[in-house]
Order: sequence, then structure tokens, then C-alpha cells
Amino acid sequence: MRLKPYNLKIKTGGPLVAILHEDTAHQFDLHVGDRVKLNCDRTEIICSLDVTKNGFPKGRIGLFTEAYNALNIDKGDRVEVSPAEKPESLLFIRKKLDGKALDEREINEIIKNIVHGELSPVEMTYFVSGCYANGLNDAETTALTRAIVNNGKKLTFKKGTVVADKHCIGGVPGNRVTPIVIPIVVAAGILMPKTSSRAITSPAGTADAIETVCNVTVNAQRLRKIADTVGGFMVWGGGVDLAAADDKLIKIRHPMSLDPEGMLLASIMAKKHSVGSNIVIIDIPVGKTVKIPDAKSAQHLKKRFITIGKMLGMKVQVIITDGSQPIGAGIGPFLEMIDVMDVLQNTPGAPEDLRAKSVMEAGILLEMAGKAAKGKGRAMAEQLLVSGAAWKKFQQIVRAQGKKRPPKMARYQEPIVSIHDGVVLEIHNKLIAHMARIAGAPTDPASGLVIVKKVGDKVKKGEPLFIVHSNSKDRIAYTLEFASKQNGYTIGKNKVAVVKAKTPKVKPKAEQKKKSSKK
Amino acid sequence: MRLKPYNLKIKTGGPLVAILHEDTAHQFDLHVGDRVKLNCDRTEIICSLDVTKNGFPKGRIGLFTEAYNALNIDKGDRVEVSPAEKPESLLFIRKKLDGKALDEREINEIIKNIVHGELSPVEMTYFVSGCYANGLNDAETTALTRAIVNNGKKLTFKKGTVVADKHCIGGVPGNRVTPIVIPIVVAAGILMPKTSSRAITSPAGTADAIETVCNVTVNAQRLRKIADTVGGFMVWGGGVDLAAADDKLIKIRHPMSLDPEGMLLASIMAKKHSVGSNIVIIDIPVGKTVKIPDAKSAQHLKKRFITIGKMLGMKVQVIITDGSQPIGAGIGPFLEMIDVMDVLQNTPGAPEDLRAKSVMEAGILLEMAGKAAKGKGRAMAEQLLVSGAAWKKFQQIVRAQGKKRPPKMARYQEPIVSIHDGVVLEIHNKLIAHMARIAGAPTDPASGLVIVKKVGDKVKKGEPLFIVHSNSKDRIAYTLEFASKQNGYTIGKNKVAVVKAKTPKVKPKAEQKKKSSKK
Repeated sequence: MRLKPYNLKIKTGGPLVAILHEDTAHQFDLHVGDRVKLNCDRTEIICSLDVTKNGFPKGRIGLFTEAYNALNIDKGDRVEVSPAEKPESLLFIRKKLDGKALDEREINEIIKNIVHGELSPVEMTYFVSGCYANGLNDAETTALTRAIVNNGKKLTFKKGTVVADKHCIGGVPGNRVTPIVIPIVVAAGILMPKTSSRAITSPAGTADAIETVCNVTVNAQRLRKIADTVGGFMVWGGGVDLAAADDKLIKIRHPMSLDPEGMLLASIMAKKHSVGSNIVIIDIPVGKTVKIPDAKSAQHLKKRFITIGKMLGMKVQVIITDGSQPIGAGIGPFLEMIDVMDVLQNTPGAPEDLRAKSVMEAGILLEMAGKAAKGKGRAMAEQLLVSGAAWKKFQQIVRAQGKKRPPKMARYQEPIVSIHDGVVLEIHNKLIAHMARIAGAPTDPASGLVIVKKVGDKVKKGEPLFIVHSNSKDRIAYTLEFASKQNGYTIGKNKVAVVKAKTPKVKPKAEQKKKSSKK
Repeated sequence: MRLKPYNLKIKTGGPLVAILHEDTAHQFDLHVGDRVKLNCDRTEIICSLDVTKNGFPKGRIGLFTEAYNALNIDKGDRVEVSPAEKPESLLFIRKKLDGKALDEREINEIIKNIVHGELSPVEMTYFVSGCYANGLNDAETTALTRAIVNNGKKLTFKKGTVVADKHCIGGVPGNRVTPIVIPIVVAAGILMPKTSSRAITSPAGTADAIETVCNVTVNAQRLRKIADTVGGFMVWGGGVDLAAADDKLIKIRHPMSLDPEGMLLASIMAKKHSVGSNIVIIDIPVGKTVKIPDAKSAQHLKKRFITIGKMLGMKVQVIITDGSQPIGAGIGPFLEMIDVMDVLQNTPGAPEDLRAKSVMEAGILLEMAGKAAKGKGRAMAEQLLVSGAAWKKFQQIVRAQGKKRPPKMARYQEPIVSIHDGVVLEIHNKLIAHMARIAGAPTDPASGLVIVKKVGDKVKKGEPLFIVHSNSKDRIAYTLEFASKQNGYTIGKNKVAVVKAKTPKVKPKAEQKKKSSKK
């Protein structure tokens, strides 16, 4: 049948979807989820079909933006609609839902279809569900990683080049070690082409923080050049299209916050694999209020990361770290970047916990790359930091990506004070993150919190625990209201021996920041 | 934020969905799948949010038809948009995906949200997946049945009234016993308010067949009246809105042809429960080319039907029948109805297998209802049929629902002949159904096939196996082309002893029909 096209002017965000009025579909024995072949001039596409009851003209073919654009429709064109076979990958998705393992070809077929928009959101959801309910074994996870990489853009370097990378499982507010580790490692002459994500549910992603001082959306061609000349970069992964399939799957997982373990692993490893990384450090923070709540889960993940790394030809080292409280002082894109630059410039009072963790991670990468002897990496990283070499490299990278004028400090700053005398026993990471978001992070990059008191610190009634930063009076009020009910701090008599992080105690810089913002 | 509404004029088919441009969503920290509260004048609704990149204006709120209508928007109105909590049922869906059993309240909450359009297709898919991958136990299946019934319309009758119902798991072409069983049972004074489905992937649903002689879309109020005056009806379930949630779940299951067992059971039982049925016969045909391939699966289903029936307060009797070949002669809405009326009118040559199966099922219901003594139901049913009482009741029901002029016989009729001498060893139900669909069933009600030879029949080279009926020359050609490759018949030397159905052999009436159509 030849039908007049109807441009719906709505993006599906990927899938090619066409829509028919119920009566028109019935007439041609077509149903929701069927595939139709659309021809217009010499262009042919396959769409999945949606069927609607009314509010849409009979006898026309509605096209979501992706499908409309793919067909190159000129004015007056008609579209030839005919039934098409469903993609073979639906059989494989069904197989996974049935609890059977998929092979490399089957997984690749699913991912290929996803990247080309050939699976509907409902069909992709069945794939995510199958992976969640029945799990992915190591071979499947490796195959999924390869499929994501092979069906997206890649960065490749000369054979034999050592390429370093890092990843943190996340959930610890303020844990902004990436922009410190990169310049240290690159200053030692190791290639580190790093892509990071933006915040989804946290107050700041690494890309959001770095974006307060330089551009993070850089195309693949320019990335190549920066890698060749400067030795590394720190950009937003979403701007490079390195793992397109992964972004589409994340969109499906988000509404239920569903992270099938195999998909989570593949998602992380694909980002490393697509830039050719071969030495990788993975940080798994453990704590009651972060993603990984106990040592057993962490050990399990550690084992899987190492196995899958090996199958992909990567050396992977996994560190299990203290995730019991925020790291650094600032929580929010720019407040975190201030901590980062203080560490890189050896500013007195820079957060010691952030500094120590960054130096440790950089040290491990230096040893893995063979730049430092075993046990000597940390000292070498320390030296690159103290000498100013890391700071110099940081500035080079920032300039290469495109330096930006940083935002002003937030207009409003209000302390949240303790109503008890005592010792800080616990800080709830999720509540801290939530308050930083209410204050405006990451949308307003200068907003967030500055932590004053950490676990083990003594606090007197009336003393500030943290400072809320925001450019909106309303948001300040909302945050204060929230904090008046639960501010995330447990303050007690210190009767339990508080096990502190191995890293030294933080010297809060909130006061200093508060002053600087009043200039 | 107050935004100008944008009517997308597309139905989602249920869920209330709003859409924002990516930049607008980012500004308010909203994401795909988040819930937003929309206020317009004094109307408030909760929508799930979709986010799009372009092809949609920034700073406006797009509304799919259901949401647009629910808000009662007048010209010039603005819509107040604010974040809302996600429905609690998402936690329960997640729980099911995690392999845990749900309780009655949790299942009811999910179904309530589905009926009110509060879950997106992706979220409903997660529910279907969880039920498929982890199964539903008897208590969950019963709870799901109750939830579907309680969140839809119901028909209730005076306490203590015996209400009969029947169901067939399906997959056997031509198995149109319902319009024969109903008038027999109702003629005996038993209430039988029957709702049936239309074809989805078969050449005819019961509702499609009955629709060739009378109206099948009847509102609940009139149904009540027909039940009270005539004692029963035979209508399309989709027109009554008795199990609204079920229809929405079927839409999600269709693209993957996914039938989680518990959902299938609940779907069937909900239709019975919603019309107050308390005696139910379930027919499970077993055969290589129908839905249930072996006796073991049939026995398992039988046990579950009986258990769940008991939990719902229904007497359920399950018969496991021969599903090895089509029943009756006609395959297609009107061709099947001709068989039905021939049986009801005791026309010589009416298909014996169809007659015998109908009489058996009606007999069982008569015994269950206490109208006939044990072992005497069949004879009583036989008597109601032979006496013409059933045919009289059929005509009463048809008149009450609104009699229609039946379609003309199809313009084109072409025999498919055997190319061998031998005995019919097997008939492939799915291929027969497929050819009937190619011929035009159920869209064109007069089209389909008329079976001439059945399993065990001797056939000579050149003799017709079945006749293709269609009003389209093209469709006749397509069907012949398909049949030239595979016509569904296995013809051999009868060296294996063919186990025939227990019911007597069919006297094909194809010739007679062919004649009648030439009038």
C-alpha cells in the first residue's frame, strides 16, 4: 500500500518507529510491534509499528523523526508500506529470557539492531530484563563488551602503546580523583585518553566538574590530535559516541534504576576497550550508603572485573576503598573542581583524603605501566604532584580542550549547624548527595555543599557541619527545610570506636571558600 | 514551572505521557521515566516523562492524547509542571524481577497503576518480564486474577446463581464449539454470559465468527438485560472493558509472543471471574502443531487451572483433547459459522467432529450445574440439540444482540489438490491457519479454507485436500503459491497406525458450500 507520510516531529531517541491508525492497520493485518518495510524513492528502511486508535488520520503513515529523516522524504512523496520479517535478534532476546546463555554472534546481533534503531523500547526492555533476571556469564559479558565497542566509534593507537584508564563504581560524593590522576599519569609519559560521564542521579559527574574549567565535548578527530600532542584528555564520553549502544541501554535501565551486573560490567569495560586501554584501575568503594554495601559483593565484582579484563586483553587492578563518607570538601561540579585544583597546586589546606587517594591510584597505574618499580609508584606520583609537573600537564590538557572561565561562587551560602555536642559517627552519602542536588547541583555548577565536619571529628552545638551553596534563594530554603528533618549526620558520644578511612583527616576549607566568594 | 501545552495528537494506547525538550528537562533536573505532576485549572494528573532532543519546541510541555484529554485544557491555558514521586508499584515490579513473590496488595497496586495509565510501556514490560522469568505461584496468579477483575468492570448476578463458562487454550483451526455450547447450555436454563476474543494471530476468533451473523460489541448495561431475559450471550470481550488491565498487558506481550504462564492463567480466569462464572470447563488441545505440544504440559496446566479455580471459588473441569488436526470444515470467520449453524440445525453432513466435541462440553457443563445426573449430561445435550431447542435459543441470542445479514460466499474458490496417492498422515495446524490468513481471514470474513480431507482419509492424486476461498484474486494467487511449497498435508502409505480423534469422521461439506456460493 502507498500512503501519504505524516511527520510526527517527535524523536524516539533511537528506534525507527512508524504508526498507523488502528483501522488502517487492521485492514492490512498489521499489529503493534510488527515490522514494516518502508520505501520512498530509492530509500528503504525497516520500522517497528505502533498502532493508535484516534487523534491520528486514517490511511496515512505516521513517522517519528528518526524514521522520517532516514527516508529522505520530498514534498508530495508517497511511502510504500509492506510487511517485513521481525529481526532475528528477538529470538535471541527470548532465549535470554528463557534463561539460556547467548553466544558472541547472538549478542552482537542484538547490539547491532539496537544501534541501528531496529528494536523498540519494549523489545530492548525485554533484553535488559533477561540479562537482569538470568544474569550474564563471563563469556557473555565479554561478548557484550566487544559488541558495544564494535558497533560504535573507536579510538586506536599504535600497536604496543600502553594506554591507561581508571574507573570508580561511584556513590561517594566529592570523590573527584580523575582530574588529578590523569595529569600525574600523563606527566609520566603514559597515554591516558579518558572519557567520563555526567551526573545522572549524583550531584556531579566527572565530566560536569571538568566542564567548569574547560570544554568536555570534543569530536573524535580532535581527540586523536590531543592524545598525540598532549598525551591524554578528560572529556565527556557522551560527546564522542564511543559506546552508542550503551547509552541506549542506560535509557531503558534508568526508569527502574536497573543495573544488571553483566551489563554494568560491559558498560564500564566497553568505555575502556573503545579507547584501546590496556592497563586499568577500578575503584570499588564499600560503605553502607554507597552502591556496594559490603566486602563480599566487592570481592565478587573484583573477581569478575579481572576475569573479563583478561578475556579482553587488559591488565586490570581493582582496589576496594572506604566509601563510608564523602571525600574532599566540595560536593557539586565547581566546588569539587576547587578541591582538585588545590591538590594539583599543592595549596595548603587542600583536602588530604582526596590527595592521598589520587596519589595512590596514580602510583598503581605508574607501576602497571612499568614506569615505576613495584612499591615505588606512589612516591613517583607524589613527586610529579609536588614538583608541579602534574599541574603543568593539567593546564596543557585544559588549554588543548578549550579553557573556560570558571563560574562565580554561589551567591547564597548557609551553614547547617549541629544541635548536639559530640563526635561525628556517620555521614549518609545519599542524603548528602540529595541535599547538594536540591541546592542546584549539577544544573547550576557553583551550587552544592561544602563539608566541614567528617567522621571522627568533634563537634559542638552550633558549629557548622556543612555549608549549602546556591544561586537560588528558594533552593537554599528547600535545602534548609530538608536538612532540618535529616541532615545525614549521626552525632553521638563516640562510644563505638569509629574506624576511619586509611587516608589522613581532612582540613575543611569551607571557611576559606566562603571568604573567597565574598570578594 | 508553567509551560504552554503542545498537543501531540498521538495516543499512547493507555499510559499518560508528557514530553519535554532535553534542554528544558535538564534545566529542571528531570529525566526520562521520571514522574511529573501536571496542573491545569483545578485538574491534576501524574504523567511519566519522555525527553526528546529536537523536532520539538523547547520550553513547552508535549502531551500525548490521553494526558491532553485528562487535563481538560482550554485555549490559552498554561500547565504547571512539578516533579512527582514514582509510583510504589515500581518497587514491586523490581521485587518480582529479583525473583521474590508478590502479595495481593502489591499485585493489585501494579494492576491499578496499569489501568490508570500510570506505568509506561517500558515499566509494564519489566513486569511481564519478571512474571515470565521468575514465574507466578498459585497465590500470585490468583491475586493477579482478582486484581484484573477488581480494577475493571464486572457483571454480577444474584447470589447463588449458577453461571457457566468455557475456554479453549486454542491453536486448533476451525474449533468453533462456543456458539454451539452456549445455546445448548442456555436452553437447559443455565446462565452463560460469555465473552470471547477476536483473532490475533489465528484466522478467526470466536468473536470474529459470531460477528458474521450478529453484533458482538454490546455495552455492559445491555448485556445485563440480555442475560436477564435470554439467559446468555456471546459477545466480544474487548467491547465490554471487563478486563482492561489484561488488554494492556497483552499489547506488551505481543511483540515477543511472550505468554508468562501465570499471566496466561490469570488472563483466562479473569474473564470468567469478571462475569461471575462459577462452573467452568477448560479445553486443552494437545498436538505437535498447537500451543500445548505434549500431555505432560497439559497435565501441569490442568492442575494449575483447577487449583486457581478453587482459590477463586470456581468449580473447574479440564478436558485434554485431540489437537492433531483442524476441527470442522471451514477455517475463517464465516466458513466456521456455516459449520456451526449446520450443527445447530441438524443439517445432514454437518461436521461430526465439531458436533461431538460441542455436545461433550455442553454435557459436562450440564452435569456440573446439576441439571443432569452424572453420566447423563451428554445425552441431555444431544437431546437439546436434536429437538431444535438449541437452534431456537441461538436465534434468540442473535436477535437480542442484533442480527446481521451474513456476508456472501467468497467470489474466488480454488482447490489445493494432492500430488500423491495415499493416506493423510498429518495436517499441520499452523500452516493451515497461515494459509487461511493469506487468503484474507479474518479481515475479509468470507475468506479462508474449507478442509476436504482429514487425517486417515484416503486420497488420490488430483483430488482436492482443501479449497481456498477469497474475494481477492491476488490473495488466491499468494495462497496457491504458498501451498505449492508447503500445503500442511503429509500423505503417505499409512504404514504407521494413525491414531484418530475419538470423535467420528468428518463428512466434508466443501462441495456443497461451493455450490451454494454459486447461486
